[in-house]
Amino acid sequence: MDYIGFSKEELEEMLKTEQKKLSKIGKRGISIDMSRGRPAKEQLEIAMPMLEEAAVVNYELSGGDARNYGGLGGLRQARELFGDLLGLRAENVLVGDGSSLDFMYTAIQFAMQFGLRGNTPWGKLPKVKFICPAPGYDRHFAICEEFGIEMITVPMLDDGPDMDTVESLVVDDESIKGIWCVPKYSNPTGIVYGDKTVERLATMKTAANDFRIFWDNAYVIHGFYDNNDKLKNIFDVARKAGTFDRILTFASTSKITFAGSGIACMGASEENVVEFSRHLSIRQICPNKVNQALHVAFLKNVDNIKRIMAEHADIVRPKFELVDARLTAEFAGDEYVRWTRPRGGYFVSLDVRHCAKRIVELAKTVGVIFTPAGSAFPYHIDDNNSNIRIAPSVPSLEDLDMALEVLITAIKIARIELVLSKKK
Amino acid sequence: MDYIGFSKEELEEMLKTEQKKLSKIGKRGISIDMSRGRPAKEQLEIAMPMLEEAAVVNYELSGGDARNYGGLGGLRQARELFGDLLGLRAENVLVGDGSSLDFMYTAIQFAMQFGLRGNTPWGKLPKVKFICPAPGYDRHFAICEEFGIEMITVPMLDDGPDMDTVESLVVDDESIKGIWCVPKYSNPTGIVYGDKTVERLATMKTAANDFRIFWDNAYVIHGFYDNNDKLKNIFDVARKAGTFDRILTFASTSKITFAGSGIACMGASEENVVEFSRHLSIRQICPNKVNQALHVAFLKNVDNIKRIMAEHADIVRPKFELVDARLTAEFAGDEYVRWTRPRGGYFVSLDVRHCAKRIVELAKTVGVIFTPAGSAFPYHIDDNNSNIRIAPSVPSLEDLDMALEVLITAIKIARIELVLSKKK
Repeated sequence: MDYIGFSKEELEEMLKTEQKKLSKIGKRGISIDMSRGRPAKEQLEIAMPMLEEAAVVNYELSGGDARNYGGLGGLRQARELFGDLLGLRAENVLVGDGSSLDFMYTAIQFAMQFGLRGNTPWGKLPKVKFICPAPGYDRHFAICEEFGIEMITVPMLDDGPDMDTVESLVVDDESIKGIWCVPKYSNPTGIVYGDKTVERLATMKTAANDFRIFWDNAYVIHGFYDNNDKLKNIFDVARKAGTFDRILTFASTSKITFAGSGIACMGASEENVVEFSRHLSIRQICPNKVNQALHVAFLKNVDNIKRIMAEHADIVRPKFELVDARLTAEFAGDEYVRWTRPRGGYFVSLDVRHCAKRIVELAKTVGVIFTPAGSAFPYHIDDNNSNIRIAPSVPSLEDLDMALEVLITAIKIARIELVLSKKK
Repeated sequence: MDYIGFSKEELEEMLKTEQKKLSKIGKRGISIDMSRGRPAKEQLEIAMPMLEEAAVVNYELSGGDARNYGGLGGLRQARELFGDLLGLRAENVLVGDGSSLDFMYTAIQFAMQFGLRGNTPWGKLPKVKFICPAPGYDRHFAICEEFGIEMITVPMLDDGPDMDTVESLVVDDESIKGIWCVPKYSNPTGIVYGDKTVERLATMKTAANDFRIFWDNAYVIHGFYDNNDKLKNIFDVARKAGTFDRILTFASTSKITFAGSGIACMGASEENVVEFSRHLSIRQICPNKVNQALHVAFLKNVDNIKRIMAEHADIVRPKFELVDARLTAEFAGDEYVRWTRPRGGYFVSLDVRHCAKRIVELAKTVGVIFTPAGSAFPYHIDDNNSNIRIAPSVPSLEDLDMALEVLITAIKIARIELVLSKKK
């Protein structure tokens, strides 16, 4: 709603009404956390049959005994499974412990410290920059900050990063060494990269020959609707274009089995896998292959993972639909309140210009926690103070409905406050 | 035996006899790997009851749900358990995934890249050196090589590193930033650090104020004989001396439950734990807490771990005793052939001056694999070409007996060859 047509008195009256509503909710003593993309408890139950089989699983399926040392790159069968999921051969996949973020961090650490494929270590260059499509994933940006990598914000469009901008940047500037991408059900906007975007990323000219696309396919099979949303296989394009070395992909089962206790992988060209493994072998003997054997036995194959993910979708989908329904009922057609309608993943991205911080703050006063406003931008700088990341997966539908009531009320309060402040 | 008194012809005859023996064994087509300290298959079976309970374990024992994200430093109960094992409070312990080597590597990586407690990052210093008591653990030395840390070899004595040398080095040289220690059942000599050595390490004056003792307590509870060998608690000494920051300790259950699929920890001062966690939080959200909950349920407490380790000892002890018995039968009193008689751990250290490489090579020709000679020394430089690390845990007693036959024969051949070469 455009509050500008109302008088100061009318606005103050409306503000009072909304404030009363919020304070009434506050008295219920609710505590609802929507700050992170975590699975709900019922989702975790889906993987419990995996643990029931733990003592009878075949731990010798890869020749050796999975319960003993060996196999730095993970169990062959786990590498094949992730390969099938990502459109890669087993040779191109390393399977580790639970954290795909660890693989991403480590890839950057190795590049900083040792350099990639004979190039100067990034840590020895005067400056290293990464392209950060935003809104994006805060933990990606945190890795850049940690290593002193300068972040260049590029707008995230409906079909991926603004490729005109990306191309014009990387073609000239040798200090730009990478780009962060969550190509499917992007964090937080939920969009899927278009075919053209995938092609342009794989084939664009880069001044740096050690440029890397960090292809974080965290939601590769996390659709709500029959998993029919297709992401073009970037490796196929890259192999043809001779740029396979440019792409490092990552995935995990954190939102398929257990969050943080699943198995994670990195996919890359043969040469990159060899180089990465050489460094990794100094850090550890092997990952937890008992967990990998359990996962292989439970997940079986891509078709079976699709069945498992349909169970997840049945739990998650109604929550996303509730977010959209409630926001639509209140703000349909409102040019000041915009949100995404993802078909998969874990987030809805909400934009309320100039009001994000105040909305998050207001919600917090009554026990509803959102990710801090600005988190989805490099250096937490959201020029428009506009973006809020909503993670609706954890609360029950009932709690979520309450949280949305809080959110809607907070949006109204923040907007009225803003209009009022300009009337003074 | 001293072969020097024999004539060339006699020696050639003896050599032929031993060579025949070796070649006869070679025809059996054996394949026995004694290169790494791995548990035997029967040892891995000891932990299978842990997996039987996997579906019924309490995953909410730390307030939150262990199957979900959260808890960077690990489950409270896992931290307490390692704390009890190492003589530390839970607050001083971080529990991660399976690899303690990963914690060590990461501690050095953070020091190299970000510096410790406000000091200059080691990677920005012209030179960084570590003291490496030798023979020692090859993977420790590999980390130093990877990061370009210069290794200073210091002799390993029967009660730990040669402390006179260590003290005289660290007091003057600010570029010496650390020392590697496996204080209990040391890899590979099997010795336990004496109280005086522990005290001197904790209290010695170091020129570098970011000097760190890497206290790799890999075999903290891995004795063969009632686990009665006591290692003085270095933290107690250090707390009193005000040097707690100097000590980083590491341990894992790789040789208690599953090798590589257990849980590992780092123990350190409160301030070090805070700083390490801050960096670690950029790399991962949390470790595999499902596995930690399983371990807590199975291991229970230190007394119970002792019972579990007694089962391991019953399998491992006879193998170590067989090594000693066979070597004693052949070489008792022989000044050219020396070996250690550890009361715990995973290794016997064998010294045969000037013959190590040849012995390992000879054994390999008939299918018995030892760690490459020199591996236990920085840069693989064993000045005397003397040291062979024997890892007797994996083979069955029968296979081990055969491998020892090969070893003994190879020692004789190598020694005769050496004496012969000098006669020419």
